[in-house]
Amino acid sequence: MQILDLASYLPENIVDNQRLSELSGRDAEFFLRRTGIHERRRAASGENTNTLAISAVRSLAARNLACLPEIDLVIGCSYTSWDLIGTVAHAVQREYGLRQARAFTLSSACSSVANAMEVAAAFFDAGRSQLALIVAADHNSLYSDDSDQRSGHLWGDGAAAMLLGSAAAPAAPFVVRDVWTAGLGHVGMGPEGVSLRPSEQGLVMPNGKDVFIQACEGMEAAARLLLERNGLQSRDVRLLVPHQANQRIMDHVAGRLDMNPEQLASSIAHYGNTGCASAIITLVQHQQQLAPGELALVVTFGGGYSAGAALLQKQ
Amino acid sequence: MQILDLASYLPENIVDNQRLSELSGRDAEFFLRRTGIHERRRAASGENTNTLAISAVRSLAARNLACLPEIDLVIGCSYTSWDLIGTVAHAVQREYGLRQARAFTLSSACSSVANAMEVAAAFFDAGRSQLALIVAADHNSLYSDDSDQRSGHLWGDGAAAMLLGSAAAPAAPFVVRDVWTAGLGHVGMGPEGVSLRPSEQGLVMPNGKDVFIQACEGMEAAARLLLERNGLQSRDVRLLVPHQANQRIMDHVAGRLDMNPEQLASSIAHYGNTGCASAIITLVQHQQQLAPGELALVVTFGGGYSAGAALLQKQ
Repeated sequence: MQILDLASYLPENIVDNQRLSELSGRDAEFFLRRTGIHERRRAASGENTNTLAISAVRSLAARNLACLPEIDLVIGCSYTSWDLIGTVAHAVQREYGLRQARAFTLSSACSSVANAMEVAAAFFDAGRSQLALIVAADHNSLYSDDSDQRSGHLWGDGAAAMLLGSAAAPAAPFVVRDVWTAGLGHVGMGPEGVSLRPSEQGLVMPNGKDVFIQACEGMEAAARLLLERNGLQSRDVRLLVPHQANQRIMDHVAGRLDMNPEQLASSIAHYGNTGCASAIITLVQHQQQLAPGELALVVTFGGGYSAGAALLQKQ
Repeated sequence: MQILDLASYLPENIVDNQRLSELSGRDAEFFLRRTGIHERRRAASGENTNTLAISAVRSLAARNLACLPEIDLVIGCSYTSWDLIGTVAHAVQREYGLRQARAFTLSSACSSVANAMEVAAAFFDAGRSQLALIVAADHNSLYSDDSDQRSGHLWGDGAAAMLLGSAAAPAAPFVVRDVWTAGLGHVGMGPEGVSLRPSEQGLVMPNGKDVFIQACEGMEAAARLLLERNGLQSRDVRLLVPHQANQRIMDHVAGRLDMNPEQLASSIAHYGNTGCASAIITLVQHQQQLAPGELALVVTFGGGYSAGAALLQKQ
């Protein structure tokens, strides 16, 4: 499986720690110290998961106009759906006229992109698909509360897209060497760790300590599993690209894997936790650091819980 | 791919046309005439998509205790999520201790089960999975309004589950001969046909006429495609098992396919439109009508839009 192209979209509006300090009464330094976040992007009025997704695909679509009609699988990823029936995948299918594509949207929260990659790999291996579009979009601010002292400061809005092909493609930026996912609903607080219940409180994190512990353990274990089954050491990986949950979680995972700070890709300082799009947004931003042949290891963790990992090689 | 077992759950509370007539001011006969629905089930206080899903799996889990630990893929289906992070799949994984399973929940609205079956087939064909659990649950009444004169009378709550295996299993009730899905976001009103926007109006059907037309065309086309590519005529199919959108839609599709009323499986009179669980709930109820070797054709349509079909043979 090849990543033929990738792109991201971040809305323009910025909410900094000073603004959150005014809303929540907490010291602005607290947010930075606890999370590594300076500022986050926020969708404008009229933007939603469907428009964020469409925006993320725009430049990718322009670069790949000739092959758009051949896309046979569109997988949307989102846990902050604007519309649970006219989903991210359906909106993107319509906007770009992807008439030959299957379309559905999935969620394992912030781990969704790993699931989508594994689904695409299964369709490719089975000969059921040749060209797939994965679009991840989260509009956390639709369901979060800036004055929520527990987790309101974490959330940013953003989207990312990847075009995946089954056939060898010399111009593709990445070959996907391996992909793996696991449901962890049975671990720790499981489905109670983070929740987004639209009919109740929206996006809240009542069990932040358990989430911190399980995210550290889940991403470390996912990374180790992929390294081991590919005969690699962590020093063989040029970039670890984790879900941007919290800088402290990412630092902890990198440290446990004996990786140095230069091996850790982070975009959280300026974007916050952008949900299921965060790892791909960060990969887009750091891909130029990778020389041909170098490896990137994407690791994800979802708040329900779930984990995932993908081993990418730059071409 | 084999369906090793299947089960459904319908909550006990009943809302009949008389009750809806009192709420909406419409004549009770109107609802029956327009939709074929006499009554619908409603989740009790404290029930939600996660508990409905867990209830649907209960009897199936009891019958298959020995193989539960071998389930390596749990796919939840729902567009009426109670929790978009601790999803249906994660709640079921936790309840039944499915520690080896990948877990995610997907939506193409009322067509979701066909997508889940195609994903399972791809995982099986690719050798990535051997035993999968699909759980579909919709709690329409959480987001719908009984007094909504356009579509409030349609919705019921319910759930269904299927255990799928990759290997031949003589005791399995069904062999899945074929499965197919298509995204139709580009057709007609597409993502605007039916919508469930938790931050706006909830579950509404602003373009009912387009939905009616596209559901008829989408399910007819899905059925024809599967019949043709399997060298079958509609008379070769013992039971057509459509998504239970509306009795008039189902009658229209069966008529267009030259099927007689005995070939059409319907449960809508007593359950209403139970969302993505509806076709499997109906299959559970009608499976005893099928003799060994006879065929059932499941056809689905989702309001975003999407279509799907699965050809099943009774063993």
